[in-house]
Amino acid sequence: MNVFDAIQARYSVRSYKMQDVEEEKLLRLFEAARLAPSANNRQEWRFVVVKDAVTRQQLMHAAREQEFVGQAPVIVACCAVTDNHVMTCGQPCYPIDVSIAIDHITLQAVEEGLGTCWIGAFYEDRVKKILGIPHVVRVVELLTVGYPADEGLPKNRLPLNTIVMRERWK
Amino acid sequence: MNVFDAIQARYSVRSYKMQDVEEEKLLRLFEAARLAPSANNRQEWRFVVVKDAVTRQQLMHAAREQEFVGQAPVIVACCAVTDNHVMTCGQPCYPIDVSIAIDHITLQAVEEGLGTCWIGAFYEDRVKKILGIPHVVRVVELLTVGYPADEGLPKNRLPLNTIVMRERWK
Repeated sequence: MNVFDAIQARYSVRSYKMQDVEEEKLLRLFEAARLAPSANNRQEWRFVVVKDAVTRQQLMHAAREQEFVGQAPVIVACCAVTDNHVMTCGQPCYPIDVSIAIDHITLQAVEEGLGTCWIGAFYEDRVKKILGIPHVVRVVELLTVGYPADEGLPKNRLPLNTIVMRERWK
Repeated sequence: MNVFDAIQARYSVRSYKMQDVEEEKLLRLFEAARLAPSANNRQEWRFVVVKDAVTRQQLMHAAREQEFVGQAPVIVACCAVTDNHVMTCGQPCYPIDVSIAIDHITLQAVEEGLGTCWIGAFYEDRVKKILGIPHVVRVVELLTVGYPADEGLPKNRLPLNTIVMRERWK
């Protein structure tokens, strides 16, 4: 599947089949993440892969009771080990770098026939407690992974001429 | 080109051919960005596409005199129109959402035979002044785009077992 088709086909999957994700597929997702670029090659990304049903249920509660989170066969806590370095532009590196790695996972997942959903609606302290994640580590996103049981809707997006400007802000 | 090959082939291109980027290719890059997911479909991303040589030289100075920035035929200021909404997890939406869109551009660029480089080393206030970007808008990254005149080196990355943990933090 080419890149453009994967980008078009990706959608936020909120219903999953009760079907395990093959280990070799999971490894390719994280290999895709591993190859991501990061500021000064800091590679702050760390991934805690959760398949255990009891733990997934706990994470569902920490993710504001979103039921589909617990229903997904795999939940990945996408973390950052970071010294909170801020780039010259004023942005901390770690949320950007971890997001690039996660995006690689989501597109590789499409290629593997899998679906994902980015989840920012969770209580970080509760997720850390559930997974034994040290206080200094940041949990940037949760990501559900599995075989989709739903279908994507047409994407509702702003038109290109609203988001792209030429030469100057207009 | 499939997704995994594009992820493997992508590298930070810091030398560009003196060759224009075709308009239809540029449009596919931004179409790839446009289709990205964002928190609550906020779509904060805005892109100012700069081809003018004088402006590119000014941006090079604002990017801490990194010469290759001025040498690239296209520089994209990757911006966010944002109310600074913070997700339950504690992260602001906009750096994550804009990064996803930029990552789509970088992978689509590989498919188009183009190269890119993420640049966080720039003075945001100077870039805003050069491009007439309003004070409230954030410039998250600059992205150079063009045909590569260099070649990627083997990627120096942490091994998979350092970045992936099972069930709990270890």
